[in-house]
Amino acid sequence: MAFSERVSRLKSSLIREILAAAQRPGVMSFAGGLPAEAMLPKVEWTDMPLSVGQYGMSEGEPALREALAAEARALGVPCEASQVLVVSGSQQTLDLAAKLYIDKDTEILLEAPTYLAALQIFQLFGANCITVPQEADGPNLVQLRSRLEKHKPAFIYLIPTFQNPSAVRYSEAKRDAVAALLDEFGVTLIEDEPYRELTFDGGSATPIVSRLNKASWIYTGTVSKTLLPGLRVGYLIASPDLFPHLLRLKQSADLHTNRIGQWQALQWIGTEKYQQHLGELRDFYRVRRDAFQSGLEMHFSDLAEWNVPQGGLFFWLTLKQPLDTRTLLKAALAADVAFMPGEPFFPEPDKNPGHLRLNFSHIDPARLDEGLKRLATVVRQAQAAEAA
Amino acid sequence: MAFSERVSRLKSSLIREILAAAQRPGVMSFAGGLPAEAMLPKVEWTDMPLSVGQYGMSEGEPALREALAAEARALGVPCEASQVLVVSGSQQTLDLAAKLYIDKDTEILLEAPTYLAALQIFQLFGANCITVPQEADGPNLVQLRSRLEKHKPAFIYLIPTFQNPSAVRYSEAKRDAVAALLDEFGVTLIEDEPYRELTFDGGSATPIVSRLNKASWIYTGTVSKTLLPGLRVGYLIASPDLFPHLLRLKQSADLHTNRIGQWQALQWIGTEKYQQHLGELRDFYRVRRDAFQSGLEMHFSDLAEWNVPQGGLFFWLTLKQPLDTRTLLKAALAADVAFMPGEPFFPEPDKNPGHLRLNFSHIDPARLDEGLKRLATVVRQAQAAEAA
Repeated sequence: MAFSERVSRLKSSLIREILAAAQRPGVMSFAGGLPAEAMLPKVEWTDMPLSVGQYGMSEGEPALREALAAEARALGVPCEASQVLVVSGSQQTLDLAAKLYIDKDTEILLEAPTYLAALQIFQLFGANCITVPQEADGPNLVQLRSRLEKHKPAFIYLIPTFQNPSAVRYSEAKRDAVAALLDEFGVTLIEDEPYRELTFDGGSATPIVSRLNKASWIYTGTVSKTLLPGLRVGYLIASPDLFPHLLRLKQSADLHTNRIGQWQALQWIGTEKYQQHLGELRDFYRVRRDAFQSGLEMHFSDLAEWNVPQGGLFFWLTLKQPLDTRTLLKAALAADVAFMPGEPFFPEPDKNPGHLRLNFSHIDPARLDEGLKRLATVVRQAQAAEAA
Repeated sequence: MAFSERVSRLKSSLIREILAAAQRPGVMSFAGGLPAEAMLPKVEWTDMPLSVGQYGMSEGEPALREALAAEARALGVPCEASQVLVVSGSQQTLDLAAKLYIDKDTEILLEAPTYLAALQIFQLFGANCITVPQEADGPNLVQLRSRLEKHKPAFIYLIPTFQNPSAVRYSEAKRDAVAALLDEFGVTLIEDEPYRELTFDGGSATPIVSRLNKASWIYTGTVSKTLLPGLRVGYLIASPDLFPHLLRLKQSADLHTNRIGQWQALQWIGTEKYQQHLGELRDFYRVRRDAFQSGLEMHFSDLAEWNVPQGGLFFWLTLKQPLDTRTLLKAALAADVAFMPGEPFFPEPDKNPGHLRLNFSHIDPARLDEGLKRLATVVRQAQAAEAA
């Protein structure tokens, strides 16, 4: 059996295994990142023309590209529809970017922690992952400059708005500072924003790509967190120097994104109806966030520290007595509670113990308190066993 | 700008450019491979449950996997639903296979000619493409054995049923012989069958993967040629040793295939309604094939040789006086007629001049004669110019 060299880096996905276990009836899951079923909008299909069943353009549907470009311009991103590529969910942006940039040992720059599935595909292609520590308002700027002085990364990958997993939202000052540094060092920015619209305090800082003057960039988003993930419709917007390469890579990956989902997304993007739905989503998730915060205060105050997320879908807990949280999984699942260990969100998991990512959007509120109580018990017992 | 090494092999797609030119109003196009608009079936969406809007499994919808496995077993492919992976169009199978097998300079074995988009993605990943000449009933077996004796390809990629571009359907004898050779040399088979159901003479030879005893295999199909390409729903079925790797690669590529298209495909696969639709498709395309054959006899008898395709969507013409057919494109488009040059379907285009791929399914029958007449004139003029 002669597989490619990269397959030796194809890890078993811990997420897959945890999510599979979390599907078991009776399990209270804080593990996934699924939108709440109750908030999936009712969508209509009756007006969809049969012609969308035919092959389409690799770029995506022209009207959808126009609508996405208009939305991005409203956020300050300087772009035309010709820079928009519709992708099969924003995960595909990461696949295309990996193909565009990463050979074996190519240096790239990431936040620590960063999005697990991004880390997986960048590592699959052989990236040498350099990291910058994440702080409450964005990356440590001294260390970012130091990394840029010492390395020549092919790109930097950032999730500046309600990052998965840390829930961090970059401050205005750090957005400006990061943009200035990337311009200074000429490093391409990949900015991933699945959670932008899920803001609970009304904050809406403009994307970092809109603050760049020289550096190349890819901005990527999705309708998965705000409309229907099952459509598998995301998009990227790229600086004109990168777009033609990304388009060809998209074509060779899957010809084009399904047109059924694109048509449905177009019924929403830029409409009053979508704004109303987003408002309802924010209200719904804010209530769940608040309830989760109360539950955490009750059960985790002595065990962990955390910041209250102002958006997104996750709490990121830091244990006061660090331990490898992957070792908690077995006991947690035995107690019918699932969570996501923090270690896999770092390129060097073993050096970064003691974090838990907890999803607050999906759990049945009636079981929230019991779930957190059981999880706290699992942590307490493990720490007692370590101390013994 | 530091792109990956593979991007240097990311060719401008001739197909993209020709298809774009073929979109011009008034152009008579034999270039693409689009299903006839008139034969896109009317599909219903009213019964689709809202729950398919949620994230789904990377493997695909369980009921669809069961249905696809049942269809494959009926064709003689020994498989369970657990070996079925739903993909975002069968092009994605090629992307996943490239990731699984191809490093720079990895040897792979292909038919010559072979499917252009397969060639592109295999070369993008750096494959060293070894070829076996295609004959009217399948590959030259002496040369296939010789290649297998001299090389150790990571896999062989075959399109045994109405190949794009050559329209060749392997005979029973060659299917058996190929399977025996792959078992003997232990070479993995990737068998691509988008056109299987588009048969005009009722022939339905079982897949080569069903004739293997030992070799690993990937069998891939799609609903794009028989239902709606805009759904972007294809599938692969793999031997159990390969499946777990392909599943992880699928997850890192785009998490999962859109569930809307999967739901629609499930309304058809294995139903009486689908069989009826396939019958209508075959009748419709057979009539177009016959009309095309008449047109070719009238305009190309002195210029080219060809076999009458018993299925699929293409005629493959071999010019009696070979010339590089890429040089005909400009004059053809100036005469408002588009076709696909044969050279790009070979890993070494310059060494394989003198073929044209002509699609017979999409052109308006009222314009068929005029289109072929103009194309023949372009060929005649170029040959006269060469002779002068």
